[in-house]
Amino acid sequence: MTQTFKKTIKAFRSTFLDFVADPFYVPEAECVRYIPDGLLILEDGKVKELGAYDQLQDKYADIPVTAYPGRLIMPGFIDTHIHFPQTEMIAAYGEQLLEWLSKYVFPAERKFKDKAYAKEVATVFLDELLKNGTTTALVFAAVFPESVDAFFEEADRRNLRMIAGKVMMDRNAPSFILDTAESSYQDTKKLIEKWHKKGRLLYAVTPRFAPTSSNQQLQLAEKLLQEYPDVYLHTHISENLNEVAWVKELFSECNGYLDVYDQAGLVKERSVFAHGIHLTDQEFQRLSETKAAIAFCPTSNLFLGSGLFKIEQAKSAEHPVKVGLGTDIGAGTSFSILQTANEAYKVAQLRQQKLSPFKALFLATLGGAKALCLDNIIGNFDVGKEADFVVLDLRSTPLMAFRNPDAIPKSLEELADRTFSLIIMGDDRAVQATYIMGELASSQQSG
Amino acid sequence: MTQTFKKTIKAFRSTFLDFVADPFYVPEAECVRYIPDGLLILEDGKVKELGAYDQLQDKYADIPVTAYPGRLIMPGFIDTHIHFPQTEMIAAYGEQLLEWLSKYVFPAERKFKDKAYAKEVATVFLDELLKNGTTTALVFAAVFPESVDAFFEEADRRNLRMIAGKVMMDRNAPSFILDTAESSYQDTKKLIEKWHKKGRLLYAVTPRFAPTSSNQQLQLAEKLLQEYPDVYLHTHISENLNEVAWVKELFSECNGYLDVYDQAGLVKERSVFAHGIHLTDQEFQRLSETKAAIAFCPTSNLFLGSGLFKIEQAKSAEHPVKVGLGTDIGAGTSFSILQTANEAYKVAQLRQQKLSPFKALFLATLGGAKALCLDNIIGNFDVGKEADFVVLDLRSTPLMAFRNPDAIPKSLEELADRTFSLIIMGDDRAVQATYIMGELASSQQSG
Repeated sequence: MTQTFKKTIKAFRSTFLDFVADPFYVPEAECVRYIPDGLLILEDGKVKELGAYDQLQDKYADIPVTAYPGRLIMPGFIDTHIHFPQTEMIAAYGEQLLEWLSKYVFPAERKFKDKAYAKEVATVFLDELLKNGTTTALVFAAVFPESVDAFFEEADRRNLRMIAGKVMMDRNAPSFILDTAESSYQDTKKLIEKWHKKGRLLYAVTPRFAPTSSNQQLQLAEKLLQEYPDVYLHTHISENLNEVAWVKELFSECNGYLDVYDQAGLVKERSVFAHGIHLTDQEFQRLSETKAAIAFCPTSNLFLGSGLFKIEQAKSAEHPVKVGLGTDIGAGTSFSILQTANEAYKVAQLRQQKLSPFKALFLATLGGAKALCLDNIIGNFDVGKEADFVVLDLRSTPLMAFRNPDAIPKSLEELADRTFSLIIMGDDRAVQATYIMGELASSQQSG
Repeated sequence: MTQTFKKTIKAFRSTFLDFVADPFYVPEAECVRYIPDGLLILEDGKVKELGAYDQLQDKYADIPVTAYPGRLIMPGFIDTHIHFPQTEMIAAYGEQLLEWLSKYVFPAERKFKDKAYAKEVATVFLDELLKNGTTTALVFAAVFPESVDAFFEEADRRNLRMIAGKVMMDRNAPSFILDTAESSYQDTKKLIEKWHKKGRLLYAVTPRFAPTSSNQQLQLAEKLLQEYPDVYLHTHISENLNEVAWVKELFSECNGYLDVYDQAGLVKERSVFAHGIHLTDQEFQRLSETKAAIAFCPTSNLFLGSGLFKIEQAKSAEHPVKVGLGTDIGAGTSFSILQTANEAYKVAQLRQQKLSPFKALFLATLGGAKALCLDNIIGNFDVGKEADFVVLDLRSTPLMAFRNPDAIPKSLEELADRTFSLIIMGDDRAVQATYIMGELASSQQSG
């Protein structure tokens, strides 16, 4: 046997939970794959097999096993909307969207022309993501190409499945943070050539939002999507009522906010729109038809007082829209997808809706992967998928230990109860370890 | 000098922040007492003096100093509404108020007839409060006198300034959790005699809420307030729209929810009403006139989907109502008053209001003390007050350390920014130590 054919095989024994279908449309019991005592076999960082320990142990008797007794292993969390240059400005006081951008965001992002600074922040940012169990994110960089290089260099070094892009914005903001339609096109093109599909990295064409892009810039964004059909489109939509009114003023020729992007040819599969709080029925339908996705960012939507996202409308049976969860750091208040799910539950409650723990955890994993059109390679433990996963501790604080006397749920009902407590009470401390392609990337002392 | 005259003197050096007036009515700069390098002198557990270190150091040169460099010392947090028997049922899924009570609360509280069990939970509960920096709370026990004994015994052992009471409920709930009007009167009377003013403990007459008390029971509650004029009245009001409608049905002779309590003579100074989300303008006015207080419980109000409290109306200049923050465990989702303030900010934002960090921290300390009519003995560092305080770390996580490079704010503006980040990003980890009457009661490794 030559070296060429040598594969790296790894085995993990623990309790496993992932999703195999969408619980918004399929009965929950059919969506949940729960293995109380399971064995996960990886080959070269990808899933080779997952099953009950007693059924697989003989087959893999030669492989050393990493065991996490009393823990729950899930696919890595997916954050479908976040801004890495805003890491330093979490908790900026007292404003709603448009004023908050001018007062806090633009001055903070200005610093990201300095690549060394951008690298430093990218390091903190990626450490926080991994510590919180987030293994894939769709990321806004800043307007400066240096910020994208810094981010991708750090993500690549960690072998992460990350999607990011340079912000495009050529108007309605201070000149120190503007590009031009032409420069944004050229810079983005170079960045796509440099980074898209390098290792696990992917590129997103990233106009900030309609008010800060000219029609020409939006059209050039579309040209990039034509030239590179498998890159993403990542932007914001209908977050705040003043923003929506402003867009109507700026684009009076369009029939609403989504239509601005639609007329430019930017609404399609692989397009991800953050927020969508004030979307109309027609806009939800159009997103459904085009297979575009929405990033639901509850901690941000509450922090900026933007409003309450209509999850049940987005996930309706008639016009289903792909939805993922987003922390939206720095308007969001936590890097934790668990805490994000906590506030998603609260937003649903305020709207007299119920977001079950399985639905929330689906959004955090396979649902996020679907929103990012990555469900063929991440999002659950199907054979062949990239093995990014988290080791969770349902008893990570004294209070959670008191709430959950038994570490391992014995039924689906118990599992729902325990994972709900994980969402409502858990934070980064509940994430004992994070693995990337089967390699330990982050860990903490056991709780 | 005889032993009798020997006083215990202690000294603490750190940065100090407390409030000397209400920032909802007085310019913030006049309300904040901020001492970047201060010395706090205690005598027998009470404040003897607080001032700048360089001005006091000679005077107290003989006293050993406990120093917390790079930390912020504030008065202990005050939780104006919480249920100790619900500690175990935080994160109970999927219901709004009335169904949540039947499905989760009543079965959980039933167990508190067993005093040993109640003691065990009281221990966990008080440990959590102290770990989170809460030094005084207004607490619902269960319907069983045993639960009150258990709670007060544990609180007394820790020398805590706590207020609690036996739940009174004689209808509209399962029989296993009901008392009768007469038994509730007799049991409460005995408990008041036994516990009110024992050490630092105080008693609250505690009808659960109008729907579960007969008129007779409410009248006997009022009789107790007459017989013991310095005990408290603690109940719920106008939390949920179905609840409000039910009260109107049950008490059709009354002019709204507050009027039910008012006709029974229960609306007065030392009366604390939890929630008050759906109060009318007239009811706010009546609370103002009577000097009754409201406990604002945002994590609970969001978790149960109850609605958004109108803080600006409660704190209006025309009809000011006393307001404190409440975690409302177990409908609330965190023991942390910091996280409670985080969600209070979000509730305000959704209502297009701004809750400044100083206003929020005022509510958490002196405001809470005023709501509980305890501002003569706790709530800030005025001379003679009981020295319950917390040692806070503005850099308690890697992310907070990144957000706040300097531990000690140099101006009031910086202080506002840093304390806002404490509210939005902080949790129990930000509470490095909690002192009760000058004695260390809880501490953790420095972050």
